[in-house]
Amino acid sequence: MGKNLTKRNVDFSKWYNELVIKADLAEHSDVRGSMVIKPYGFAIWENIKDILDKKFKETGHVNAYFPLLIPKSYLSKEADHVEGFAKECAVVTHYRLKNAEDGSGVVVDPTAKLEEELIIRPTSETIIWASYRKWIQSYRDLPLLINQWANVMRWEMRTRLFIRTSEFLWQEGHTAHATRTEAVAEAEQMHDVYADFAQNYMAIPMIKGVKSDSERFAGALETYTIEALMQDGKALQAGTSHFLGQNFAKAFDVKFADKEGKEEFVWATSWGVSTRLMGALIMAHSDDEGLVLPPALAPFQSVIIPLFQKDETVNEKLLAEAEVIAKRLRAKGIRVQVDKDDQKRPGFKFAEYEMKGYPTRIVVGPRDLENGTVEIARRDLKNKTSVNNADIETTIEALMTEIQENIFKKAVDFRTENTTEVKTYDEFKKAIKNKGGFVVANWDGTEQTEDRIKSDTKATIRCIPLEGSKADGPCVYSGNEAKYKVIFAKAY
Amino acid sequence: MGKNLTKRNVDFSKWYNELVIKADLAEHSDVRGSMVIKPYGFAIWENIKDILDKKFKETGHVNAYFPLLIPKSYLSKEADHVEGFAKECAVVTHYRLKNAEDGSGVVVDPTAKLEEELIIRPTSETIIWASYRKWIQSYRDLPLLINQWANVMRWEMRTRLFIRTSEFLWQEGHTAHATRTEAVAEAEQMHDVYADFAQNYMAIPMIKGVKSDSERFAGALETYTIEALMQDGKALQAGTSHFLGQNFAKAFDVKFADKEGKEEFVWATSWGVSTRLMGALIMAHSDDEGLVLPPALAPFQSVIIPLFQKDETVNEKLLAEAEVIAKRLRAKGIRVQVDKDDQKRPGFKFAEYEMKGYPTRIVVGPRDLENGTVEIARRDLKNKTSVNNADIETTIEALMTEIQENIFKKAVDFRTENTTEVKTYDEFKKAIKNKGGFVVANWDGTEQTEDRIKSDTKATIRCIPLEGSKADGPCVYSGNEAKYKVIFAKAY
Repeated sequence: MGKNLTKRNVDFSKWYNELVIKADLAEHSDVRGSMVIKPYGFAIWENIKDILDKKFKETGHVNAYFPLLIPKSYLSKEADHVEGFAKECAVVTHYRLKNAEDGSGVVVDPTAKLEEELIIRPTSETIIWASYRKWIQSYRDLPLLINQWANVMRWEMRTRLFIRTSEFLWQEGHTAHATRTEAVAEAEQMHDVYADFAQNYMAIPMIKGVKSDSERFAGALETYTIEALMQDGKALQAGTSHFLGQNFAKAFDVKFADKEGKEEFVWATSWGVSTRLMGALIMAHSDDEGLVLPPALAPFQSVIIPLFQKDETVNEKLLAEAEVIAKRLRAKGIRVQVDKDDQKRPGFKFAEYEMKGYPTRIVVGPRDLENGTVEIARRDLKNKTSVNNADIETTIEALMTEIQENIFKKAVDFRTENTTEVKTYDEFKKAIKNKGGFVVANWDGTEQTEDRIKSDTKATIRCIPLEGSKADGPCVYSGNEAKYKVIFAKAY
Repeated sequence: MGKNLTKRNVDFSKWYNELVIKADLAEHSDVRGSMVIKPYGFAIWENIKDILDKKFKETGHVNAYFPLLIPKSYLSKEADHVEGFAKECAVVTHYRLKNAEDGSGVVVDPTAKLEEELIIRPTSETIIWASYRKWIQSYRDLPLLINQWANVMRWEMRTRLFIRTSEFLWQEGHTAHATRTEAVAEAEQMHDVYADFAQNYMAIPMIKGVKSDSERFAGALETYTIEALMQDGKALQAGTSHFLGQNFAKAFDVKFADKEGKEEFVWATSWGVSTRLMGALIMAHSDDEGLVLPPALAPFQSVIIPLFQKDETVNEKLLAEAEVIAKRLRAKGIRVQVDKDDQKRPGFKFAEYEMKGYPTRIVVGPRDLENGTVEIARRDLKNKTSVNNADIETTIEALMTEIQENIFKKAVDFRTENTTEVKTYDEFKKAIKNKGGFVVANWDGTEQTEDRIKSDTKATIRCIPLEGSKADGPCVYSGNEAKYKVIFAKAY
């Protein structure tokens, strides 16, 4: 299998598309822009979801579910929001089919036309704030800390599995607060939750920052973002958290009475990550042999392969030993699979598990039975070691931590190597063109400069880093006084 | 709160509608037929989901995700299926909005019309079998045991929260097998999983049976069902598992090569339960004071209420003691909440937690501090006992089992009292009219008899019980030889 995968340095985009298919993660459906997430890919998403859901609950949030369909008129209530969003949406206009008169199948029943069209949610601010108006009367109803796991749809012309699909899965947090300070703190808290998750579980280092005016979410006063660097030198926005001010409260007339009985508009945030994280995970770590998964998210952290022989008695012993090891590892909380297939060659199997990114592989052969050993292969380093069978639990447990850290370190090193600080626009253009990656530069804070740099180089401001250094020279483009030192990159 | 709830014997339907709102479970949205599942209701659904998901995985199933939108033409591929389903669906015809020329908001862009309309899935057999065609080539690809948690939509004219809504949440299992025997065994296994779950977690006894021809799922050869009895004497179908034969395989041309290389159509099942289970849970157990929840599914199994006084020093001690008890209970895996509110009166709080169905309530007052006691109230029996604080963990743990069993027993007794076996059609009509409940009768097996009974009495055949006795007399309606002894009831 590995041999058929296009190499990253030949065509990164082709490598990605092939890998998603060959590792059995997802595929295109017959419905334009909608993907099928296959069981192996979905198992990774379930791990992501479970961990994040726990973190949301630990920070006081609860889940709820709001309607899929949004009345068209809702979308125009918040003016900036409709500008940024409403255009490319799936529109429901009818609610019934009928048999075609010529017997050729079913047709839309023209008499079943909706009075007001319904939109499949591209995001749920509008429908949720319509509910919040009913739920919030007094300061005692605040804060309201709600999250939703849902499918959303934004009609996309050019799609790519996980990275950009018309339908995708995500979570969207929507919170309401009595004060600006509290809402800003919430947006920042969720920004931290995302960054910690990305670094500790996905093993991807993130730049934490805020978006420039032009890249901000439609309707937000501040958008906090985590930005990752992919192996092709392009940036990927992995999660955003928005301070929405009182915009949605005003649009949907959501007021609360404070302790003195005075009515005020509530303050809001929203925050989300999506199946796009799957794309980031794949492009950050994987190699020419296939997927590389951090142990924290791998559906299976190890596979045990008995090296079947011609002798059935030996095979029974090998399989029995594999099952014993599996049981011992499972007792330690390791997610492990036993490969019982007796048809495929070992080399074929090894390539298959490499393609799927199993962090470790444990091979048990006849000699191992005699010597009390097993062979352990690491996916990240592609090395093999023979270890004492008796030590297998401690060895694998230690490896899980080691691999997780090694993958993270590799991604950090890659990012360091591919971050260039520039002072002149020539250096800027050269960096973007020849090397890619993150380009750090002084910026005068104007949209005009942003636009021109984008049309010249396709690079955009990924974020104004929260922990970056201050502007220390003139704007790299205009030569005017710089307001911020920011991160530019071409982005997904 | 409790006082405002309509009594069950006055107007059961009104009682239900009020209860769903007052217990904060769900509410209607502005989108016709679509509900908002509020955090407290969703927490119960999450418990249902987590337990079922674990059971599906234990029986070898994996999760995946298929597109929300289905090409219209797919629906007509399986003839019986389209007859049973396709009519009342949300139809997507356009993919873009634009600003209205008069500035009044957004309108559908007429130039963005889809070539083929897309339907929001009413169920996913068609889109899933279109994928299975690509995934299945050989017997080695079988069985395919996949489940999906998703939202689906069936346009409904008369809706009721949880019981019948246009959009609802559910899980749908779709499996593919090499043999008929294996597929039937799968459908039966999932039928058992559902029944066990309903009885052991929801505390609702179920009649397990198969549907008559006319009540069978569109496209199925056999539909296994679990049927519950609600407190108003109406039946509720709580979960179905379908043996689909080779119908979908033929419609979507899904063949596999067996060990001898011979091509055959695969055998299929599908099975699902939905947020309708929430309706069953509410209507099976709750009373005129509100929700009654089995401890196994309650978001919180207990609430600890300190009886706040005027003296702040005492209040601090009360709250500290409540927190200590909470910690001790949590260490035993009990889901418990502490009510810190110092504004509401105790009586008001008690009514609130009764409305929300908390299985137990623990009250700590100043005298309890002196005596080393607490007062425990049971929601199911509405009694109170003073118990030794030192024994609180064992007391509450034991109560969880006791309450779960008591609620189940009560439901079993109710069903026994409300099941009537009849021999004549007069008895039949009288039973349905005066008493409701399950009516057991001999049936000749014809659709004609079924139809006439239905138009006379509104009762339908809920199922042919798997563990019922055989026909033992003539058909209750036609007087002809009976084929089965079946369960009739009016149903949701």
